[in-house]
Amino acid sequence: MTAAMVTIPARRGKAARVREGQKITVVNTYGSQVVDTWAFNAADLTERMSMEHSRAYFLKLRPGLGDTLVTNQRRPILTLAEDTSGGVHDTLMAACDNPRYELLGCTEYHDNCTDNLTAALAELGLTTPTTPSPLNLFMHIPWTVEGILAWDEPVSQAGSHVTLQAEMDLVVAFSACPQDILPINGRARQPTEAHFRIG
Amino acid sequence: MTAAMVTIPARRGKAARVREGQKITVVNTYGSQVVDTWAFNAADLTERMSMEHSRAYFLKLRPGLGDTLVTNQRRPILTLAEDTSGGVHDTLMAACDNPRYELLGCTEYHDNCTDNLTAALAELGLTTPTTPSPLNLFMHIPWTVEGILAWDEPVSQAGSHVTLQAEMDLVVAFSACPQDILPINGRARQPTEAHFRIG
Repeated sequence: MTAAMVTIPARRGKAARVREGQKITVVNTYGSQVVDTWAFNAADLTERMSMEHSRAYFLKLRPGLGDTLVTNQRRPILTLAEDTSGGVHDTLMAACDNPRYELLGCTEYHDNCTDNLTAALAELGLTTPTTPSPLNLFMHIPWTVEGILAWDEPVSQAGSHVTLQAEMDLVVAFSACPQDILPINGRARQPTEAHFRIG
Repeated sequence: MTAAMVTIPARRGKAARVREGQKITVVNTYGSQVVDTWAFNAADLTERMSMEHSRAYFLKLRPGLGDTLVTNQRRPILTLAEDTSGGVHDTLMAACDNPRYELLGCTEYHDNCTDNLTAALAELGLTTPTTPSPLNLFMHIPWTVEGILAWDEPVSQAGSHVTLQAEMDLVVAFSACPQDILPINGRARQPTEAHFRIG
């Protein structure tokens, strides 16, 4: 049986339940869409994938092939099993939120990854008390030796993918980032849908 | 009136209330002690200093002189006003916790910054539902162009200090990190006390 492909609608979120050992493949369908990614222990959503604990675990600014992300209890939750996207992801930046868009000059509500996480979990009847810092798949935040960061375009290509292996029963949540002011979703600043499958 | 110097005991935490506009000076008394630092909005402890929001705000891996750290609501909370320590601090690593020391081979309870935060806040009658990723003052986590991280010794000297200006009424909490397995508190692996004053 081929696993069904699920759509992460443009500017929206989507969550799913995943069993230990299953693989989650995230496809950058149009090539330049950042996908904010969260994972939570299915049995206790206060245990969740943590970028600050993961960096201390694999001692890198971003995970490479074979690296395992851990929770805020330092237990393995996802392993980066395949990556055809060029390997450029981000662990440094918070999910966007409405205050972020206010700082960028928006005077009305703007779709954002924080609210998308809430909505995606709500579809499963779940809530999280906080917004963990996400694994920003395909997001390109270059750094210099001096530690200067920037917002850059993804290096991923259309149809490229990342495969994450579940190291525990978990809930995964994605947001197709609605950022259309900075070039983080490509120079065209046109957020698109992306897709994932579990199997 | 000279502000009183407060001790952060070796391997322990200490918290204090600070009013907007006051300055908090943290002294690395013996020179090589990492001081994990948190700040919370005094009126609502769910609003707290956030490393992932701060990096997006000042676009650096670590704050420099004059940079402002922000909360998880992206509002200014602390500004780095003075620094005689060499400017090497960390925003990347989670506070140590008991699971961290288990991974390092400890079979019994080990003092840790996470529990120190809880204890320090409890002395003020306060609690926090989560352990935010701290600003690790004096902590030396070098990075390479390839994004490889390491645990290194502080570059700070005895008596050097950092001064943080409060941008709102806040609660600040410190932990004199009890890490004595890695050289993060100096090659001697001997955690020491540190001090702070508010004024």
